[in-house]
Amino acid sequence: MTASQPHRRRAPALLVHPLDGFDRLARRLSGADGVRNLLGGKGANLAEMRSLGLPVPPGFAVTTAACRAFLAGGERWPAGLWPAVERQLRALERRTGKKLGDPRRPLLLSCRSGARTSMPGMMDTVLNLGMTDAVREQLAADTGDERFALDAHRRFVQMFGKVVLGAPEQAFEDALRQARAQRGCADDAGLRADDLRDVLARFRAIVAAHGQQPFPADPRAQLRLCVEAVFRSWNGKRARDYRTAAGIPHDLGTAVNVQTMAFGNLGPTSATGVATTRNVTDGGKAIEGDFLVQAQGEDVVSGTRKTQPVAAMADWQPKLWRQFVRHCKALERHYRDVQDVEFTVERGVLWMLQTRTAKRTAQAAVRIAVDLADERRIGRDEALLRVQPEHVDRFLHPQFDATARAAAKAEGRLLGTGLDVSPGAAVGVAAFDADTAVQLAKDGQPVVLVRAETRPDDVHGLLASKGVVTSRGGRTSHAALVARQFGKPAVVGAAALRIDEATRTLTAADGTVVRAGEWLSLDGGTGEVFAGRLATKAPGLDDRKLQRLLGWADAVRRLGVQANADLPEDAARARRFGAEGIGLCRTEHMFFAPDRLPLVQQLILTTDDDERRDCLERLLPLQRADFAGLFRAMDGLPVTIRLLDPPLHEFLPEHDALLRETTTLQTRLALHAGDEPAQRATLAERQRVLAKVDALREQNPMLGLRGVRLGIHMPELVRMQVRAIFEAACDVAAAGVRPRPKVMIPLASTSAELAVERAELEPVVQDVLRQRGRRIPYSFGTMVETPRAALVAGRLATHAAFFSFGTNDLTQTTFGISRDDAATGFLQEYLQKGILHDDPFATIDRDGVGELMRMAVDRGRAARPDLEVGICGEHGGEPRSIAFCDGIGVDYVSCSPFRVPVARLAAAQAALARQAAAAKPRR
Amino acid sequence: MTASQPHRRRAPALLVHPLDGFDRLARRLSGADGVRNLLGGKGANLAEMRSLGLPVPPGFAVTTAACRAFLAGGERWPAGLWPAVERQLRALERRTGKKLGDPRRPLLLSCRSGARTSMPGMMDTVLNLGMTDAVREQLAADTGDERFALDAHRRFVQMFGKVVLGAPEQAFEDALRQARAQRGCADDAGLRADDLRDVLARFRAIVAAHGQQPFPADPRAQLRLCVEAVFRSWNGKRARDYRTAAGIPHDLGTAVNVQTMAFGNLGPTSATGVATTRNVTDGGKAIEGDFLVQAQGEDVVSGTRKTQPVAAMADWQPKLWRQFVRHCKALERHYRDVQDVEFTVERGVLWMLQTRTAKRTAQAAVRIAVDLADERRIGRDEALLRVQPEHVDRFLHPQFDATARAAAKAEGRLLGTGLDVSPGAAVGVAAFDADTAVQLAKDGQPVVLVRAETRPDDVHGLLASKGVVTSRGGRTSHAALVARQFGKPAVVGAAALRIDEATRTLTAADGTVVRAGEWLSLDGGTGEVFAGRLATKAPGLDDRKLQRLLGWADAVRRLGVQANADLPEDAARARRFGAEGIGLCRTEHMFFAPDRLPLVQQLILTTDDDERRDCLERLLPLQRADFAGLFRAMDGLPVTIRLLDPPLHEFLPEHDALLRETTTLQTRLALHAGDEPAQRATLAERQRVLAKVDALREQNPMLGLRGVRLGIHMPELVRMQVRAIFEAACDVAAAGVRPRPKVMIPLASTSAELAVERAELEPVVQDVLRQRGRRIPYSFGTMVETPRAALVAGRLATHAAFFSFGTNDLTQTTFGISRDDAATGFLQEYLQKGILHDDPFATIDRDGVGELMRMAVDRGRAARPDLEVGICGEHGGEPRSIAFCDGIGVDYVSCSPFRVPVARLAAAQAALARQAAAAKPRR
Repeated sequence: MTASQPHRRRAPALLVHPLDGFDRLARRLSGADGVRNLLGGKGANLAEMRSLGLPVPPGFAVTTAACRAFLAGGERWPAGLWPAVERQLRALERRTGKKLGDPRRPLLLSCRSGARTSMPGMMDTVLNLGMTDAVREQLAADTGDERFALDAHRRFVQMFGKVVLGAPEQAFEDALRQARAQRGCADDAGLRADDLRDVLARFRAIVAAHGQQPFPADPRAQLRLCVEAVFRSWNGKRARDYRTAAGIPHDLGTAVNVQTMAFGNLGPTSATGVATTRNVTDGGKAIEGDFLVQAQGEDVVSGTRKTQPVAAMADWQPKLWRQFVRHCKALERHYRDVQDVEFTVERGVLWMLQTRTAKRTAQAAVRIAVDLADERRIGRDEALLRVQPEHVDRFLHPQFDATARAAAKAEGRLLGTGLDVSPGAAVGVAAFDADTAVQLAKDGQPVVLVRAETRPDDVHGLLASKGVVTSRGGRTSHAALVARQFGKPAVVGAAALRIDEATRTLTAADGTVVRAGEWLSLDGGTGEVFAGRLATKAPGLDDRKLQRLLGWADAVRRLGVQANADLPEDAARARRFGAEGIGLCRTEHMFFAPDRLPLVQQLILTTDDDERRDCLERLLPLQRADFAGLFRAMDGLPVTIRLLDPPLHEFLPEHDALLRETTTLQTRLALHAGDEPAQRATLAERQRVLAKVDALREQNPMLGLRGVRLGIHMPELVRMQVRAIFEAACDVAAAGVRPRPKVMIPLASTSAELAVERAELEPVVQDVLRQRGRRIPYSFGTMVETPRAALVAGRLATHAAFFSFGTNDLTQTTFGISRDDAATGFLQEYLQKGILHDDPFATIDRDGVGELMRMAVDRGRAARPDLEVGICGEHGGEPRSIAFCDGIGVDYVSCSPFRVPVARLAAAQAALARQAAAAKPRR
Repeated sequence: MTASQPHRRRAPALLVHPLDGFDRLARRLSGADGVRNLLGGKGANLAEMRSLGLPVPPGFAVTTAACRAFLAGGERWPAGLWPAVERQLRALERRTGKKLGDPRRPLLLSCRSGARTSMPGMMDTVLNLGMTDAVREQLAADTGDERFALDAHRRFVQMFGKVVLGAPEQAFEDALRQARAQRGCADDAGLRADDLRDVLARFRAIVAAHGQQPFPADPRAQLRLCVEAVFRSWNGKRARDYRTAAGIPHDLGTAVNVQTMAFGNLGPTSATGVATTRNVTDGGKAIEGDFLVQAQGEDVVSGTRKTQPVAAMADWQPKLWRQFVRHCKALERHYRDVQDVEFTVERGVLWMLQTRTAKRTAQAAVRIAVDLADERRIGRDEALLRVQPEHVDRFLHPQFDATARAAAKAEGRLLGTGLDVSPGAAVGVAAFDADTAVQLAKDGQPVVLVRAETRPDDVHGLLASKGVVTSRGGRTSHAALVARQFGKPAVVGAAALRIDEATRTLTAADGTVVRAGEWLSLDGGTGEVFAGRLATKAPGLDDRKLQRLLGWADAVRRLGVQANADLPEDAARARRFGAEGIGLCRTEHMFFAPDRLPLVQQLILTTDDDERRDCLERLLPLQRADFAGLFRAMDGLPVTIRLLDPPLHEFLPEHDALLRETTTLQTRLALHAGDEPAQRATLAERQRVLAKVDALREQNPMLGLRGVRLGIHMPELVRMQVRAIFEAACDVAAAGVRPRPKVMIPLASTSAELAVERAELEPVVQDVLRQRGRRIPYSFGTMVETPRAALVAGRLATHAAFFSFGTNDLTQTTFGISRDDAATGFLQEYLQKGILHDDPFATIDRDGVGELMRMAVDRGRAARPDLEVGICGEHGGEPRSIAFCDGIGVDYVSCSPFRVPVARLAAAQAALARQAAAAKPRR
């Protein structure tokens, strides 16, 4: 144990720390981040607020280090921890002149969890700790408010009973409901002292009946149990699920913040509220929030009572409001970002209980970042870093079609309106509990989660849903918070809707009933909820602030951003979204069009050379028109056209259907059932197709006759494509368009394949250009999508002017994993079991695939210094993959048109991160 | 052109060179190899023989450099070549006192092709060049042998007509046959001068009718055309096919050797023959060969006349025989290897016309190498290098089962006996021409090629066949030579068999007829030919000389050699063949056994946990018995057991058959045909199986749920396997056997997979060992068979004590090529088109797969210096791949038991090559 002695000597100071002395602690722990790691986000902010001179109730934190030690030691208290807590408690008693459990000068404490990263509602809190019968009576006498004292006591019993002793929440709620029914009041504020005395007795009975142990009488024992319970809640299922969904590591632990209570329910001059320093839905500059007179914080957050807008404080207590606004401004100035604060007014005295960086919608994130930069609070680079690339994606979320919306309203299908807390349109079948939502989503059904209010245990259901509707709760309610964070459209607090979870019905004011499994549409941007399915329309990107931000991004990024587009309308949209060319046009998509597929099938099925030539001649003008459209849409920008890639059988009818059909016909003929000559004729024709499908069938088509192999096998087909490309280029050039065709050869793994293919195709290009008498800038390149291609990249580069990484295929072959097969199978199992931390098909596997990519870039450039390198797999639109590509010297990424704005921002962030890393002095 | 001036100045000397001055030329060209490159093998040997003082007719070579210049210049004579030829010709005239085309002192020349590497019969030859009517008459007068002169003339017209002017060979043969028929003689020796005068006239008419140009009158023009024709023949189809099959580069070119003629047909004191200085069929020490009095060389080689054994010379001309034996000994001593010589006796004077290293059977190669080493002519290392690894394989060729052979003889199925020129038993259907043989072989049919005699254009048919039978030709006939080189069993000169290619029949002396497509069996080791199919038996390896050679190999090699074996009898055989352990036991092969498959299917199909457990419990003792057998067979040696690898659907019935069956039943039920309840029951059962097959079906099973993924997905299955392994080990250990189990985890591509699997399996091992109270040395390792595994080998090595390269899979994923799909498809196309030089599934692709392997070895050893590395793909038994593995530091190769002896020799050769490379001073 000698080696750990120094650590143990330091331990007491770090296991518990007062919510004070932020600056000293920050110096000791190398910065504010170190404090946040130790005290948790909430604790650190409390200490920091106190150092800013804001009114914060005094207290101390049992640190994350203590939590980790507790959990690592098999949920035992580490040596020295309890004495340290007691020391801090005594200091707090000295400071406040109050004493825990002493009826004469009672000290009441709040005891809240607070991790490094905020996990709203996920962890447990106990208020009013230190309450006993004697304390309550003294408190009633001191305040002259017996009702308040009883209410505080019953809350303590309820919370302690639930959090520490494991009594069921529902039992408490039922008891309260009965009391309200007896009294005939709508909410708890209507209950009188006698009612509450009765409630308290019932709560005690509930705890006695259901609690895992007797209610400890000693407040110090209560505190100890309370800290333990919070520590344990870190490893609770709902906390783990949340962290997994949010990508928060599981080994950080939480702190417990122990503070003196401030009572928002101490008579009509008391109040409590939550607010954000700006509007976190649209980014507007006004303070937004919810506020309740004579209530405790949980009343606001849980959404059980209808709140007032926070600005109503100005009418209630103008001076306090001004004070509050000042505090908000100070906090925003200090933290250089919008804050989410909790506060309480106890008999006219304002206490700030919490501050943290506010979560926000995508729209708000963009507006706030741009505004802060314009206000010179942050620089433009920092503004770029403040917006998550995924936020940009939210701007592209589907919206309801205006006509459809108008029609739905005309038909009386608008069920009601709630708070517009997370934008975007969602359509799905109603699910009235989280598990059902998950099940339906698994079956491929779009789901809308419908709850009176959501609780942390609903998160998995919310994540599985397209959107969420609640009848209760405000902008900062659990449902709103989580929906915003994960970009799910949400309407909350739609009080006009009666949501009955028992009967699984949603009843509108007009009596319309929506049952489980029926369709529901909601608009999180307007707060409207509709019965049935509303049509959604293609999204726009015309937000002025977003355009400014993306303009800044374009100025910063090194990576080019192009789009994968196969059709002129896609290309046009991509260009509007900022694409600087087409990085991948998949020509096969053109072949699947209904007017072409029969021709393509005939081409594949025929054994007659003349017929094949004829098919190709008929396909040529169609392809030419496709390419002409792309060139026009991308006038002056590169258009990278991949020659035919997929295995031929993909163009033919499905094998099993053919087999079933022919077997049925054979059986019928054998039994002499039906029209024999007709059946015989059909059978012969289908058997011919089946024979060809069988001949083309491959055991592993992913590793079969496709890509350049197909081009070498059927040179007339790719020759036709190249002819179409260059005839189209000449056609549009004659009309003043500047085409920049790039011909991309897929799936090469040897330089000989490229040499053979170029020898086949260059003469076609020359032939067309000579015939038309035009000069068109063009190049030939190849995809790098097998490990061998990366390994021999130096040789490939001698035959290719550009590379484009096909990271989908490269990932498949590097891992030996077929994405199609793995997606629903063992890959999910691997992710769940932590064998893989990330889905390599979602983000580039840096250790394997990434090393091959780096190798390909280095070897390719060594052989051809001006080699252009891009990426056109789906990774090309994923921010972490974009950062990796930026780091290894890729020239451009290409992604779906809708990801182009995301990629522009991600590329800028990658460039900033690279510059920051380069600027950092080496140690 | 300035840059090439120095080369052009040197050109005359190198374009043509006399067949003299070998030593001086060797000094100039840095060794004998340089001379061989320039003059071709035959020309170099002629020059070398002259320098050894052997009687060689004088002459000169038009060199390979001249050929390359001719071909590169579009088949034009390079500047200076013809003047150089004329200079050499004048020198030759001066030296012999004769003159080309001068009837008084006629100089007659032979004009033969001679490439760097011998290509027997592939290239063209013209004899008696310089013959004119006037010369012939003078020659007849000088020799007093008009018949000889006419015969020489008609040969010249025939060869020049065919080789240079392109007249059809068959026409000449027909004319000769007619002449023989008219005269009533069996062979050409029976033709008289008058007959030959007639033949000559006919031949001239044939050339006039069919020749591409008139027969030139001037002998110098003839010589020029002749050289051109030989040069052109280098690029002829049959020459290219041969080179492709033999792995000879296509860009070497051939030399033309122009020599004064020596006549073996100049009366009864003249003769001609071919011989090898030892027996090249069994390696015996006697000179072997064929000999014909009064004949020219082609009569012997083509097999058109029945030859005498060369030893008959001793009776014919004892003094000449002694002289010949001296020359043979001198040549063998000089070249330190068995020689294949051609000679002619012209009127009692012996001329040596050619010497070259003799081709030989596998048996002969081994015996000769061992004998030469024992005779101290060569060292043991060189003896090892003299035998091709594939030669060892020939020892393992199937032999006829003795009982089957006896029975066939008893039944009168022995059709006849010919020369035993290439050992091994072959069974196949008779094909009477090469194209049919190729076609049948493509259809998967084993074929025996049956020809009266073979010609170079038959080579593709011979390569496609299991063996060859001819009715004509001797040990050095074309058929014998090619069959030996490519290891095909062959019986030639089976004169008792009448082979009629027109009617496609083989008729035995007893009248038995074998027609095209009927079965035939032949033994190239005994010369026997049987009707029908004879059973073959597992081969032996008990040759004493081979055992000595392999013993020397074992002493030299660094690589270990292990075997891939799944059954105790395989393991036992492998050990007899010299395997030092089992490098790969595929446990799934045990699951396919008929007594187990139903159990395995039940295991896969059940959804009931108890039933699954029950299946596993019943499989456990079966697996245990399997492993116990392997441990006993490999007592004291490592046994590497791979955990279950293939996708589960491989154990279930085939999908399409199930679909056909269920569709038929459904159709029948819909039509109310047959016993409905029974059909309904069958349908339900089959549908259940089909549903499971469908559920397990993967689009790309090669990249799907298999290998370690299966183990992680179904841990109970691999736990059962590991239990079986260690229970078996304890069982046999109790009986005094020393088991050395190594557990191999397949298809890992991340270190987490190994960590998870080991955490799952180590406790099972410990549990068994504790229960049994035994200590067994064991280790866990993994296969490296995905590119990612190679890239992250350092991390894998922290969880694996050994690696084993699965190069089949690694090749598939590195190239993105499915072997099953590619074998009959585009991969063949790639090989034919030269896009790939070697099939990467046959020999390791060094640039791609090889680099990954090197990386895996280096990174693995960096992390774990004592990491053991093997290879167990099919490449493990292929000599070039073995050499590569030796070079990158692999510890052992594992291959099929039959390849073990091959691998032992290949490993020794690899070690010797590596040592030689290391010893060579760096420049």
